[in-house]
Amino acid sequence: MQGKGFYCFHVLSLMLLLVGFHGSVQGRLLFVSKPDPDDASGYARWLASQSSWGVLNTISSELGGAPFGNVVSFSDGLPDKGTGIPYFYLTALDPTARNAFEDQRSSLSISEYPIGTCKADPMNPTCAKITLTGKLVLLDGNSKEAEFARRALFTKHPEMKDWPEDHNFRFYKLEIEDIFLINYFGGPKPLTVDQYLHPKKDLLASVL
Amino acid sequence: MQGKGFYCFHVLSLMLLLVGFHGSVQGRLLFVSKPDPDDASGYARWLASQSSWGVLNTISSELGGAPFGNVVSFSDGLPDKGTGIPYFYLTALDPTARNAFEDQRSSLSISEYPIGTCKADPMNPTCAKITLTGKLVLLDGNSKEAEFARRALFTKHPEMKDWPEDHNFRFYKLEIEDIFLINYFGGPKPLTVDQYLHPKKDLLASVL
Repeated sequence: MQGKGFYCFHVLSLMLLLVGFHGSVQGRLLFVSKPDPDDASGYARWLASQSSWGVLNTISSELGGAPFGNVVSFSDGLPDKGTGIPYFYLTALDPTARNAFEDQRSSLSISEYPIGTCKADPMNPTCAKITLTGKLVLLDGNSKEAEFARRALFTKHPEMKDWPEDHNFRFYKLEIEDIFLINYFGGPKPLTVDQYLHPKKDLLASVL
Repeated sequence: MQGKGFYCFHVLSLMLLLVGFHGSVQGRLLFVSKPDPDDASGYARWLASQSSWGVLNTISSELGGAPFGNVVSFSDGLPDKGTGIPYFYLTALDPTARNAFEDQRSSLSISEYPIGTCKADPMNPTCAKITLTGKLVLLDGNSKEAEFARRALFTKHPEMKDWPEDHNFRFYKLEIEDIFLINYFGGPKPLTVDQYLHPKKDLLASVL
């Protein structure tokens, strides 16, 4: 009976581990803890680093100037070494890149909900959301920043390296000009771009 | 030992059920199957019905006309009885509602990824995404449509009924004018608003 009980315990532990991994970004939530909501810059950087996708919004030249959101994958750096700056791998076969050629104004919206750490409705203020607004810029393919974007994106999104060459995917970044963050009750958190790019705490300091 | 084994089996079943529910919208994915990608209208309606949140995009009057995305909860009807029309419960304390007062042009972007049915990267064409573009309209609070929106939203988002009265939440809908759907390789699926609102198959026909 002890044997069976021991086996059962281990199988249950594995199941709990699976639940823990499910919905997280490559399971990193098990290793990097969520900052305190009062730490606006740390929380925002944690959200950007732990998220693998969001909605990238541009002004649609094909829909009369309507705001056009598009689900995209992104990366702000190597796992747990985020820079806070979102990089993208886009093709002009998709409207978002075409829109950016006409008008660079853009925003990226990210929700904490799919990370799996929310205990309430996706619109509850305790389930964080961030919108980074700025300009969507095409990187020089030969630049060091494009090489950084390639490593940052292909590490978090391994299948990207195999996406079809004839689609002419290129590396882009969002040059952030404004930050809208809600991660608790009481309305948006005051957070400047400088505070976001230079958070009080190094994310690695919160490693368990 | 049989007793322990039986207990263990039931606990494991519960864990498996939790894994199954995790990432789905109130577990309905266990009951409604995903349409074939060739069924563009059915797939789009399934995505709208199974999703509980998305990014609602407006033109920001406070950020010089920039496209501003905002994570919001929505509902297109009672569970598994979706109408395809997204309804929202918004407060003018949030920029999105204020933006809509100035310019109704809007879009709602939804990803299949958080539903938990994707087997690839969030940006892989087989992981569906849809953007509904149109006008964000405030409903007459005394109208039958507002009462429908209340039932649709409060059923899928039970905590909404307890949100603070002094925030003056109001019911809105997206009047859809254009649909951008990618749910397989080969680019966006041709899908008119009429085809979306009147899909070939009733979603209930796909109940297992």
